[in-house]
Amino acid sequence: MSDNKIPYKIYLEENEMPTQWYNVRADMKKKPEPLLNPATGKPMGHADLAPVFCDELIEQELDDVTPYIDIPEEIIRFYKMYRPSPLVRAYFLEEKLQTPAKIYYKFEGNNTSGSHKLNSAIAQAYYAKKQGLKGVTTETGAGQWGTALSMACTYFGLDCKVYMVKVSYEQKPFRREVMRTYGASVVPSPSETTEVGRKILAEHPGTTGSLGCAISEAVEVATKTEGYRYVLGSVLNQVLLHQSIIGLETKIALDKYGIRPDIIIGCAGGGSNLGGLISPFMGEKLRGEADYRIIAVEPASCPSFTRGKFAYDFCDTGMICPLAKMYTLGSGFIPSANHAGGLRFHGMSPVLSQLYHDGYMEAVSVEQTSVFEAAEMFARAEGTLPAPESSHAIRAAIDEALKCKEIGEEKTIVFGLTGTGYFDLTAYAKYNDGEMTDYIPTDAELEESFAKLPKVE
Amino acid sequence: MSDNKIPYKIYLEENEMPTQWYNVRADMKKKPEPLLNPATGKPMGHADLAPVFCDELIEQELDDVTPYIDIPEEIIRFYKMYRPSPLVRAYFLEEKLQTPAKIYYKFEGNNTSGSHKLNSAIAQAYYAKKQGLKGVTTETGAGQWGTALSMACTYFGLDCKVYMVKVSYEQKPFRREVMRTYGASVVPSPSETTEVGRKILAEHPGTTGSLGCAISEAVEVATKTEGYRYVLGSVLNQVLLHQSIIGLETKIALDKYGIRPDIIIGCAGGGSNLGGLISPFMGEKLRGEADYRIIAVEPASCPSFTRGKFAYDFCDTGMICPLAKMYTLGSGFIPSANHAGGLRFHGMSPVLSQLYHDGYMEAVSVEQTSVFEAAEMFARAEGTLPAPESSHAIRAAIDEALKCKEIGEEKTIVFGLTGTGYFDLTAYAKYNDGEMTDYIPTDAELEESFAKLPKVE
Repeated sequence: MSDNKIPYKIYLEENEMPTQWYNVRADMKKKPEPLLNPATGKPMGHADLAPVFCDELIEQELDDVTPYIDIPEEIIRFYKMYRPSPLVRAYFLEEKLQTPAKIYYKFEGNNTSGSHKLNSAIAQAYYAKKQGLKGVTTETGAGQWGTALSMACTYFGLDCKVYMVKVSYEQKPFRREVMRTYGASVVPSPSETTEVGRKILAEHPGTTGSLGCAISEAVEVATKTEGYRYVLGSVLNQVLLHQSIIGLETKIALDKYGIRPDIIIGCAGGGSNLGGLISPFMGEKLRGEADYRIIAVEPASCPSFTRGKFAYDFCDTGMICPLAKMYTLGSGFIPSANHAGGLRFHGMSPVLSQLYHDGYMEAVSVEQTSVFEAAEMFARAEGTLPAPESSHAIRAAIDEALKCKEIGEEKTIVFGLTGTGYFDLTAYAKYNDGEMTDYIPTDAELEESFAKLPKVE
Repeated sequence: MSDNKIPYKIYLEENEMPTQWYNVRADMKKKPEPLLNPATGKPMGHADLAPVFCDELIEQELDDVTPYIDIPEEIIRFYKMYRPSPLVRAYFLEEKLQTPAKIYYKFEGNNTSGSHKLNSAIAQAYYAKKQGLKGVTTETGAGQWGTALSMACTYFGLDCKVYMVKVSYEQKPFRREVMRTYGASVVPSPSETTEVGRKILAEHPGTTGSLGCAISEAVEVATKTEGYRYVLGSVLNQVLLHQSIIGLETKIALDKYGIRPDIIIGCAGGGSNLGGLISPFMGEKLRGEADYRIIAVEPASCPSFTRGKFAYDFCDTGMICPLAKMYTLGSGFIPSANHAGGLRFHGMSPVLSQLYHDGYMEAVSVEQTSVFEAAEMFARAEGTLPAPESSHAIRAAIDEALKCKEIGEEKTIVFGLTGTGYFDLTAYAKYNDGEMTDYIPTDAELEESFAKLPKVE
């Protein structure tokens, strides 16, 4: 199809929306390693996980053979509230860059959670409701996941307790207020409300918290409260499954216009967006039906793929969660205080870790000043003020488009624009004022963190 | 067409988008009264307005006979960045209300300015650029208009100076930061940078500013700086013309599915959204082709339609702007400090004022606690966190839907959801904490303000 026939925004019709999620594990020859019980070192089965997670979500977590799983009707209905999300042709950005590359982005920010997180939040809330639970607990850092979950819980009439990393709780009162508006209760973490929180506070009285620590608290409350389970917005296999809706919609939209991407780019923190975006494309690659360059982009200040170890590690600071085999910087790793751009989890989705380990994808790390430079350029060209997390993908997409310009190649680039930056203006202000700095952890810092990795086998 | 065939969101295709704006004045038998020169009391022509406004915008301001005006190609291209905006069927809200009414809303918040303001900002920036100007000045209250204008100016490479009401400048640093990210310079008003600002500061040293005062400053700078003109985001005829894109898209979407609205509802501050939304429907009504109930919703704390006088008044506090015949509370009127919900301009679009005066539309006023109650209900049902301004329309739409329930009538209601509330969380926090109060100006207060209306004729 001729290029000028491609609209600025490709919206699917409701009847073109996917009705099944795609489970990329089904097509992986080498499956991701199982979660291990930290006490016994043995793989965890349904019974081990049942005190923490909802039953049907455990089935999804453990299922590495079923390629397609039906999306329940009620979830499809909720998806229609804010999906399909647009696949946008970045005509304005292309023009600004004067690149022969064709750039597309899948924009997941047109909902009040401000990101793709709602795709899995509504699924997890649905299964919790179906199981007859009273409520769920979770952690949130910047607040996108917490907001998404509060929106999903209010829809199903579930109670929602969010442990919010203390520094974000204090610096982002507005995110907290959105969650409250959707009826969630929000607790700064570490808190006195849990054993693990009290322990961490005793050991580190002035701590401003971390994601790993908030996870520990949320898990403790879920396992100790009747009728509650814990839910998580990234890293887990089930989350990647739900997020495959992003990639499936992208693929349908591209196919509709006969567009074949050469490069697919996503930012990677725990891997929820990247895993979702690339799923169907990775499936084709695994089945030998097509080839794509797939690039994960992470912050240079929290470089799990590019500088982490592929090893079993805890997902939380309190070391009460299962062990996962993943690229990790060590569960005690906390990015430098100057880091503004999200994507601060120490580990990475086991699915993506395995795929990266097996050579199916690349990874690059970028420094935050260059990320905000890309964010500003994108905002001015394409209108939308991007989330700092998403801007990592923008940075890499711009870099690839500039390479195309240099060598005169007309590649098609697709990247994931996970969300908007409306709650990240403190970071933008720092950038606008020229006060943003970069920090890359030293090898010695990482070695110190790696030394504390649990010994498995 | 059967009801269950109507999708949750109706998106037009690019080729279905309007290519002309509609000028409702062309169909008005009684035209809005002309702007008057405050010094002479005489109607202002092109030459009088040229020092303040861009030439082609003056043509649009004064043209009350041409029904359709072509949208320039470059503006259509920019519109495609964020338009068409969706017409959403509020299935979830209908269900929550258990109403037989069918509710639709035209959602203008899916762009970084967070509102419909971008529709006119890009048009005004385009004509400024075409005229070879260096830049434009404007005022902003809550910041939506300023943000929209900074986005439009960066697109055309124009300088953008924004006078921001001081209280908003201080309480909404994030809006300010968005404007800066798009390259605008933002000055808190009243400021020492203008004569009128210095005069107001001398008379009221502790003042936190007002829209009317920021207008005075922006106009002064525009008229005194080579290569600059002043632009305004509401009230003016030209703004209503540009905003007609909202109503035109709405009508195309409704017609596509054979839907005929009974009631059309919009919030009204200066009238930009309401005027744009209702334009083509009002046109049909004026031409006797169809009948609709059209309802303007305003805050009880700033009730220009429902308690104002239909009289000539200044648009600004400094009394340097032209006089407009409109519903007004007096140019010195400032809503009570507890008012959080926007829509705080003392006057109203002359076009809408004339139409209201001639009985073509109704107006209601609502108190802010009931507005935020509606906002919360809407957010929880429909997902999107609405702007306080938009929530005035939500309140009225819910009230009409509940009346339908009471009397068992299946009316079709369309309202304008002008924007999102992501920068209004201070107000939401107040509501969540149960600390929001209402204030209705007393008759005595209004009489005092009316007494200062200029004597015309």
